Formats: sequence, C-alpha cells, structure tokens
Amino acid sequence: MSVISDRLNRARETADADSVDAILLTPGPDLRYLTGYDALPLERLTCLVLPVNDDPKLVVPSLERPAAEASGIHNELEIVDWQETDDPIALVAKMLPDARRIAIGDKMWAAKVLGFRDALPHVEQVLAGPILAELRMRKSPDEVEYLREAAEAIDRVHARMAEWLRAGRTEHDVARDIAAAIVEEGHATADFVIVAAGPNSASPHHDPDESVIADGDPVVVDIGGTTSAGYCSDSTRTYVAGEPPSEFAKAYDVLLRAQMTACEHVRAGVPAESVDAAARDVLTEAGLGEYFIHRIGHGIGMEVHEEPYIVSGNTLPLEAGMAFSVEPGFYLAGKYGARIEDIVVVTDDGVDRLNQRPRELAIL
Amino acid sequence: MSVISDRLNRARETADADSVDAILLTPGPDLRYLTGYDALPLERLTCLVLPVNDDPKLVVPSLERPAAEASGIHNELEIVDWQETDDPIALVAKMLPDARRIAIGDKMWAAKVLGFRDALPHVEQVLAGPILAELRMRKSPDEVEYLREAAEAIDRVHARMAEWLRAGRTEHDVARDIAAAIVEEGHATADFVIVAAGPNSASPHHDPDESVIADGDPVVVDIGGTTSAGYCSDSTRTYVAGEPPSEFAKAYDVLLRAQMTACEHVRAGVPAESVDAAARDVLTEAGLGEYFIHRIGHGIGMEVHEEPYIVSGNTLPLEAGMAFSVEPGFYLAGKYGARIEDIVVVTDDGVDRLNQRPRELAIL
Repeated sequence: MSVISDRLNRARETADADSVDAILLTPGPDLRYLTGYDALPLERLTCLVLPVNDDPKLVVPSLERPAAEASGIHNELEIVDWQETDDPIALVAKMLPDARRIAIGDKMWAAKVLGFRDALPHVEQVLAGPILAELRMRKSPDEVEYLREAAEAIDRVHARMAEWLRAGRTEHDVARDIAAAIVEEGHATADFVIVAAGPNSASPHHDPDESVIADGDPVVVDIGGTTSAGYCSDSTRTYVAGEPPSEFAKAYDVLLRAQMTACEHVRAGVPAESVDAAARDVLTEAGLGEYFIHRIGHGIGMEVHEEPYIVSGNTLPLEAGMAFSVEPGFYLAGKYGARIEDIVVVTDDGVDRLNQRPRELAIL
Repeated sequence: MSVISDRLNRARETADADSVDAILLTPGPDLRYLTGYDALPLERLTCLVLPVNDDPKLVVPSLERPAAEASGIHNELEIVDWQETDDPIALVAKMLPDARRIAIGDKMWAAKVLGFRDALPHVEQVLAGPILAELRMRKSPDEVEYLREAAEAIDRVHARMAEWLRAGRTEHDVARDIAAAIVEEGHATADFVIVAAGPNSASPHHDPDESVIADGDPVVVDIGGTTSAGYCSDSTRTYVAGEPPSEFAKAYDVLLRAQMTACEHVRAGVPAESVDAAARDVLTEAGLGEYFIHRIGHGIGMEVHEEPYIVSGNTLPLEAGMAFSVEPGFYLAGKYGARIEDIVVVTDDGVDRLNQRPRELAIL
C-alpha cells in the first residue's frame, strides 16, 4: 500500500471513530500530508473530499488539473474539475448527500466554511484538526529524517552568523542576508527571520526594523524555513556583538540550564506540560520565572506550529515520534531578552536533539 | 483624521448598512488594511474586534503586544492582551454581549470560525468580505502609487530575464534566480515564481521542476511579490529560448491583440465581465477561444487575488481606482501555452497600465 493510501485510510478510520461522515480539506499542510499535493492556496476552490464510506475525490479548478496531476495524485484518487463559472461548493455538496457530520480542515478559510455551511444546512461542521493531529503528531522514521534535514539546514545558517551579524548593521540588513542563506543552505522557502537587537530582544516576535545593532547588544535570532520535502525548521540562538552586560550573561546561564533541563526531561510517557514546568522551575528559582512569558514549545512537522503544544494544561503523554520545540526565554521590557530553541524528537528510549549548534551565548 | 480612523469608520458604516453588529478580523491583509498592523498568522488568537456602536479593540497574545505596539496601532485603538493559558475566544465573546450578526474575515481559519460559533451560539456569522471589498476595491491615489512601485519592481525583474533564462537550464534553477531578484529589485517577499517551459507552459499554474529548457521552448514566466508597504505585484511575460514553432508565434500574435484589446476596453462604467469578453472574442474569432481556460483577471492590492474578479457573470461596473490584472492566455495540453499579464488601474478618463515591459514574444 502506498504511503498516501495508508494515510487516507487511517484518516477515514479515525474520522469514523469520531462519528464523522466525511473530511473536507482545502490547500495546506493537511492536504499535502494526506495526498502529497502541495496545492496553491487560492480563492478558487481546491478540496479533498474524503467520505468515510466512499472513494475520495479531489475537486480542482480545471486550470489546476495539470498541476495536480504533476503531483501524482491522480494515481491515488479521482480528480474532478470545475470550470471557471461553475459553483464548486455545490459540486462538493452533491458528493455528500447523506452526510450529517463533516470535519473541515482547521485552516480552511471562512469563505469556504460558510459556503459549505449554507450548501449543506443540515450538516454539523466540526474541526478535522483532532483527526489529522492523530496522524501527523507521531512522525514516521522518514518524517524524522526530513525534520533532521531541515534542522541541519538551519544549523548551517546559524553557523554562518558571524558573516552578517555585527555592531553597526541594521536588523533589517542582517535579516535579509539570513533569509537568502536559509534558501542557499537547503530550504525551498525562508518562512520567518526574527533579528531582535538590544531592547527589541524583549519582544519575542519582533519584526526586524532599521534599528542599528550596538556593541554589547544581545541579539535574538529565531529563524526557519520549509524544505522541498515540505518539512519545517525552527531554531533560535542568542548572540552578542561584543561584550554583554554582566547581569544579562548571568540570566543567560540560568536560561541555558533551563533549556538543558527541559530537554533532558523529555521522554515517552511524561505529560507534555511537564517539559514546560521543568524549564519554568529553573527560571523561577532564579527569580526569572515572571519573564518567561510564553509556553516552552510547539509541535513541528509540515507546519512550523502544530500539535502537540508543550504548554501548562496539556496533559497529553509524550510518545515516540513526537517532534517539538524546546524554547524557553526571558524578556525584560525596555532592556533585553534571550531565547534558546532546539527541535527535539521523542524516541523509544529518550530524546533526539535535531539542532546541534552550541547553545552557549555566542559572542561575535 | 488618520487614514486608520477613517478606514475603521468607513468599515463600521458599511457594516451598519448591512445590519452587521461587529466585524472580527484575524491576521491578514484585511487587518493590515484597516489598522496598519501586519500581524503574524499564528494559532494563538490575534483579533480585531470592531463593533458598529462601540470602540474597536485589538485582542493579542501577551507575547505579541510589543510587536503590535511597534506597528503604532496602540495610538489608534485599545490593545487587550491575554496570557498563554487564557481562553481568548471567550475573551472576545464577552466583548460582544448584544451582537446578533457578526461579520468574520473571509480568510479567518476554520478553527477560529467554529470557536466563535460555539462561544456565541445565538450569533449569525456572515462574511466580512463584501464590507472590506467595498473599501479595498477602490484604491486611493496613495495605494495606486504603492501598486505602481510594486509593478516597477517586477518590471525590473522581467527586464533581467536574459541573465537567467536560457536553453539547457532547469526551470527550478531559473526560478530560484528569479526569486532572489524579486527581493533584490524591491519586494519584501517573493510570493510566487512560475517558470513553465515547453509542454509545461500548457499548465497555467505549473510548479517549476527539473525540466530542462530546450531550444525553441516557449517559457511562461508569471511572477510576483509583496513590497514592504504591503502591496503586491503580478506580471507575466512569455519568452522563447531560440526560435519558436511558427504555429506558436502565430497564436501568440492573436494573444497579444487580445490583451491589447482588453486593456483598451477598460474604462469606468463598463461591466467587469466585458473586459473578459473583449479578449475572449479576439481569441475565439481566431479559433483559440477553447484554449483560454481561465478568467481574464483578478483584483490586486494588499492581496494578489482580491475583488474585483474580471470574469463572465460579474456585471459590476468598473470605477476609477479599481486595480486588476489583464491576463489572457492559451493552453494546448501536451504542446505549449502562453500568457501576457499586466496590472491596470481604472482612471477617471481611461486606464493606467502599471506594467510597462514590452509585450511582444521575447526571443532570448
């Protein structure tokens, strides 16, 4: 059985167990995971129709048919195309005459969600996220290798940071060089580049601007891309151009210990939230807990943020194959911040750290 | 009054006229257009809450507050943040105790749409698209200049095509060079690069692959990006490496006439669909109508595809300030295809063509 047939079957079985009659997925990682088709996200409807008790179909605009076939998807399921002035929502609705409960992709656009709501007024809409997460959350060995390739590619970018990051340059200029290197080092796309210097490093998702990096500024560099196989990288290191403030260096040492403690805590069977707590305890003991203002991590795979979320309240027991970030940080408004982030995979007997760059404060 | 206050007020007035009590917008061009905040599209909820009869608020995760403030949005409206383990959907629902009809952004993710549906069970959800389109569809003079900057940037990329496009190279290699040039020539991001050579040019949205460009191959190059101001470019030219098949060259001459005819047809007052018909008639008379398998164009602004769609059935009269693509093509499966695309803006007395590169078949 092909990987795709297997995934489609498992999605159906999981849907059936949830009393769902069909799954509807528009372009995005869920569709790509189940079918291999990396469809463009367009206003024209492309939709996988996956009934639990009938054959799956891919509904596409006629002009996308050749692109869909180039993905090989027509070897796995029937493609049904629609012409530019047809009503594709009605076309899908007709394929599901008896459906009562339909699961729709978590990131389907509202215009499609309400379109299906109106075309199928007696259908209850639920989210397909839990069904897809059941499949996507535990990575196969092949998927772990794709994530490792992505991690190695982003590690190569961090390894070159001294080429670009120095006092006197703007965040924006450094970010542009990094974005180019993300592609050069083996990603298909550069998805995000955070370069946050000095006080800006206290903003976890700072958008690089014209701020000039000053001597002694801590600089948080959080970067990632997607490989041609469709898997994401995401890794953060904190650099200092010159000599850091001594108070900052002390806090950083605590952060490093917190990150190592959390990574060592990861193993099959422990609740997701306990990884967050492991790092938080270290920071709290040192008086830095209040500055660690976000969860410790998020799952990663074909999306840079996906299940499982490693956050207080998530009691899900970790299992082999789960991949996620471990990224504690501290953020002191108006002063500085820091973060250390690696992607890890739970294994049968411990943890596999995919990012391998040194985690100590990098003095450039 | 600031541009943002003005836009917020106009959105409210339009919503009120549609009996909508409030608009909810998550990150994306609608939010950026109304508030200036280019928020990251994350699973954590960021949401503009815009009641018709109350003050607007921006709900953000606490870790995004500094990024939101960096956009200046806190000078225009109140920011309300939520902590990592709060329920932000419930927080928004509490802000709308009396709402009966709420308009949600067309691209809001299903997970949020169903979240609001469940938290506000007596509320009717409608799409905010028509409200936002009323504002966004007619570009202000400033917006036209932003679109012109984007068009000039993509024209500079097309002007350099001979540097990269030649027989013997793969589509993928050419596409990578073009993507880098899209950023170099003045875009913040390279959003799409279609390089479709030989038989691949018959697939309108072909994804560049390892196909090697052969001597005499028609090559469709359809490229675009987004500028730092948030406006999109989108322009297609068809190139030939070497001497084209004579049958192709003849068909291309018809296509060029069709594109010119359609552009000349554009003026205030004519129905959108008539622009499509103007080009289609030329192609049909020459026996090529059946190969023009898509609508002639789409609006463009902060999104590369937005209202107005220039398609059969859309009787909307064009008005000054409307900006859209004019991009007829022909596609003969297994043989070749071609497309010519310019962005045009309707003016008080005619049409402004933003893309200025020669439209003749470019022999490289």
